[in-house]
Amino acid sequence: MTEIRQLALRAREAARALARTSTAVRDGALVAMADALRRETALILAANALDMEAAGTAGTPAPLLDRLMLDAARIDGIAAAVEALAREVDPIGEVVSGHRMPNGIWLQQVRVPLGVVAMIYEARPNVTADAAALCVKTGNAAVLRGGSLAIHSCLAISDVLAEAATAAGLPAHSIQSITSTDRAATDELMSLHGLIDVLIPRGGAGLIRNCVENSRVPVIETGVGNCHIYVHNGADLDMALPIVINAKCQRPGVCNAAESLLVDESVCETHLPPILRALAAAGVELHGDERTRSLGAVEVVPATEEDWGTEYLDMKMSVKVVSGLGEAIEHINTYGTKHSEAIITGDYEAAKRFLDEVDAAAVYVNASTRFTDGGEFGLGAEIGISTQKLHARGPMGLVALTSTKYLAMGDGQVRP
Amino acid sequence: MTEIRQLALRAREAARALARTSTAVRDGALVAMADALRRETALILAANALDMEAAGTAGTPAPLLDRLMLDAARIDGIAAAVEALAREVDPIGEVVSGHRMPNGIWLQQVRVPLGVVAMIYEARPNVTADAAALCVKTGNAAVLRGGSLAIHSCLAISDVLAEAATAAGLPAHSIQSITSTDRAATDELMSLHGLIDVLIPRGGAGLIRNCVENSRVPVIETGVGNCHIYVHNGADLDMALPIVINAKCQRPGVCNAAESLLVDESVCETHLPPILRALAAAGVELHGDERTRSLGAVEVVPATEEDWGTEYLDMKMSVKVVSGLGEAIEHINTYGTKHSEAIITGDYEAAKRFLDEVDAAAVYVNASTRFTDGGEFGLGAEIGISTQKLHARGPMGLVALTSTKYLAMGDGQVRP
Repeated sequence: MTEIRQLALRAREAARALARTSTAVRDGALVAMADALRRETALILAANALDMEAAGTAGTPAPLLDRLMLDAARIDGIAAAVEALAREVDPIGEVVSGHRMPNGIWLQQVRVPLGVVAMIYEARPNVTADAAALCVKTGNAAVLRGGSLAIHSCLAISDVLAEAATAAGLPAHSIQSITSTDRAATDELMSLHGLIDVLIPRGGAGLIRNCVENSRVPVIETGVGNCHIYVHNGADLDMALPIVINAKCQRPGVCNAAESLLVDESVCETHLPPILRALAAAGVELHGDERTRSLGAVEVVPATEEDWGTEYLDMKMSVKVVSGLGEAIEHINTYGTKHSEAIITGDYEAAKRFLDEVDAAAVYVNASTRFTDGGEFGLGAEIGISTQKLHARGPMGLVALTSTKYLAMGDGQVRP
Repeated sequence: MTEIRQLALRAREAARALARTSTAVRDGALVAMADALRRETALILAANALDMEAAGTAGTPAPLLDRLMLDAARIDGIAAAVEALAREVDPIGEVVSGHRMPNGIWLQQVRVPLGVVAMIYEARPNVTADAAALCVKTGNAAVLRGGSLAIHSCLAISDVLAEAATAAGLPAHSIQSITSTDRAATDELMSLHGLIDVLIPRGGAGLIRNCVENSRVPVIETGVGNCHIYVHNGADLDMALPIVINAKCQRPGVCNAAESLLVDESVCETHLPPILRALAAAGVELHGDERTRSLGAVEVVPATEEDWGTEYLDMKMSVKVVSGLGEAIEHINTYGTKHSEAIITGDYEAAKRFLDEVDAAAVYVNASTRFTDGGEFGLGAEIGISTQKLHARGPMGLVALTSTKYLAMGDGQVRP
């Protein structure tokens, strides 16, 4: 038997035992895990130094190095997030629905853990702790697969957490990491239908596509966001401009940042030049259609078909003049990734139609797309943002890591 | 472009338009569809006669022929089921949750259609009408792929329904069937990630395994049920015996029928012989372990390892003597398919532990597993019984054919 299959079998065993643990034991384990992270700061930083050194040698770009880098303050922040989870309400055991059947059977639908949750992610060491803690909170066994760039940091954090969890009374192997960074390990993990209940990839579009195309384990797609801001002819420029700047520039590398700007033809001469100038002044590289370029407000690179479908995750934005609401909705439903989409308008009917017809996890009127986030939406912790329609859509909180089962208590009923 | 891709693109287009239809229009279409089925009875029966003739020539077994066969009364029954859906509450548009965010954005999570739902099924013509009607009710475009044995019947029903739906004001191509029965058509359908939102296979274990292993479109696994009845040492024989007989014999060909009987060692000499005699008298072929065979009550074939994992769907049952509750739960969690599992006991602690620890969509105390069914559980219509943990678990009603989206209404909010 291969190492990955053995690990998955151990996870399955741990999941069965975890499903029987109490809320108090799991919350206690979270506090112990946070304490352990703080106590073992030096060990984690030593592992992180190995990753940083290798990444530096490999010429890794600065933003990626920043995501990879840990220091005592960041580890304390990671520990605080783990600790905060202990104070969230436990979703497990909730009676979701129930009634007495006409034949007298007492039927309840109760919330239970999913079982074994696998996460594949890239060079962010904090995801190791986030994912492990969310799984502990929801009674799931965690199988973690960090990216090669962060592998020493991820394994160190995972070891510290696993040891603390076991010491606090959780079953052995509740938290496990895959040590191999070979592609073959991921491939095998994705083949373990029946042993792994769900696979959640967190990372770039390539990672997510690979999982969708090759996994036999059910996948929850997360996070690819080609988000649009549509400035309708009923928009007030004083409202539109700060929203566009915020959605594009406040944190361009995240999935809920805007990548594309659509502006109605009838207001493109009044509204678009000041917006383009503000974007350019903020350092945004603009890729526009012919009409946008003809305005001559600032330098605009000609947009290609590819631009409309691209999630830049960078200080770049595509810009298109549209004939009106219908074309804007059509463009968004064609090129968007069903993440977050916004209209800026003062027109009631346009707002209502945009909310009704745009097919996305979150649809906004007169607000920045940057609010699509578990914390902002009041979900507490967040495991990712689902861009698919099955199981969970939009920011996924603790409930997304649960399933339900029916309990039927009878006294001899048989089916007539 | 291939025919299947064109069909999927038309479905996608129809889904966008369907999402904008009102409840009244969709319910009206359901009534018109039911009327059309009754009006076109002769046409459907003629198509069914072609299937029956081909099936007869091919030497199809009698139970399968019975499932395939239509007559006027059965068509009327199918029409009545379509009509009944029009009277169910529309799940689309329900506000699932919502609140005012601290920054003033008014956030609502509302229920929306999934989009394009594909169903692959076997030789049951009525599934065509059930699936099309459930999709119309929930505002989804339906792509249907019936089995080759029932293809003429399925296409005739699909044509009648599609024409009636369009005449009643639904978008063209809301209901489409794949005319080819080639394996290649199924393979291509399963590859259309992004065009098809969910694939629901309904049929045997082979069909479902093929979808799980090969589909890039998210799959909801349905219906494989290796269900157990466990007779605990605290069981009253007068309660256990009728439940075992009902669960095994009342309708042995369905997924919630019991396939395996577990009996505690301490009561196997008192309880097992009368149960085995009743099963044998009902015509059940028994496959037992050594201890069961040693009781000498009736003829028992030696059970193999394969028997414990087999869904017979037939008048056969595997029988095993277990040491107690722990071994029973372990056996069920190892060999079961997470469908429906029952304990018969008068012992409170055993009942509670069985409910807590058995991992299945429905767990019963002192009742037959045959109740796992959308109608019995009060869900109204049923599209299938999910044996996976993501999205839906157990009998799936209308809500399983929906997703949600967040609507966020602001007045200029940007993220600080």
